[in-house]
Amino acid sequence: MSEREAAELAGVFKALADPVRLRLLNMIASAEGGEACVCDLTGPFELSGPTISHHLKVLRNAGLIEGERRGTWVYYRVVAEKLTRLSGLFALPVLAGT
Amino acid sequence: MSEREAAELAGVFKALADPVRLRLLNMIASAEGGEACVCDLTGPFELSGPTISHHLKVLRNAGLIEGERRGTWVYYRVVAEKLTRLSGLFALPVLAGT
Repeated sequence: MSEREAAELAGVFKALADPVRLRLLNMIASAEGGEACVCDLTGPFELSGPTISHHLKVLRNAGLIEGERRGTWVYYRVVAEKLTRLSGLFALPVLAGT
Repeated sequence: MSEREAAELAGVFKALADPVRLRLLNMIASAEGGEACVCDLTGPFELSGPTISHHLKVLRNAGLIEGERRGTWVYYRVVAEKLTRLSGLFALPVLAGT
């Protein structure tokens, strides 16, 4: 694993190192149809809309989710390639090979 | 994903959110025979022994590696169950199911 790759990955894990962001990512990943409206993501948390928006922005900047505005709301889905890459990273023979 | 599970996982990702720790974990995972002597882990970094030891302790406290003292040195190996669990977490159908 190169220094550059390690630095990039560390940034992704920093984005994941927060319970609210992990739950948001989980909710988006498990949403029906593969996408979640931001209007459905605030309810389960005792947090303000702007705070949830901040956490979603961190996940988006890390390349874990992508959002699309349609009308009033933004709809989020996970970036499957990114999650698949992370999954492969922890699969032992692959980790050993990087 | 429960609040408790999210909090525990966030701690693991915090341990991973550092380039030196990612490279150490990678070196241990890819070491011949599945284990790495702490004496072999310092060389590749321009960091002091105590700094490397600190990073190894963080990885150990997160349950990602385990160490065994044999004679003068401590030998580290990854906790395969933990890495497999993380791998599964990012596998989309499983993430969707948690």
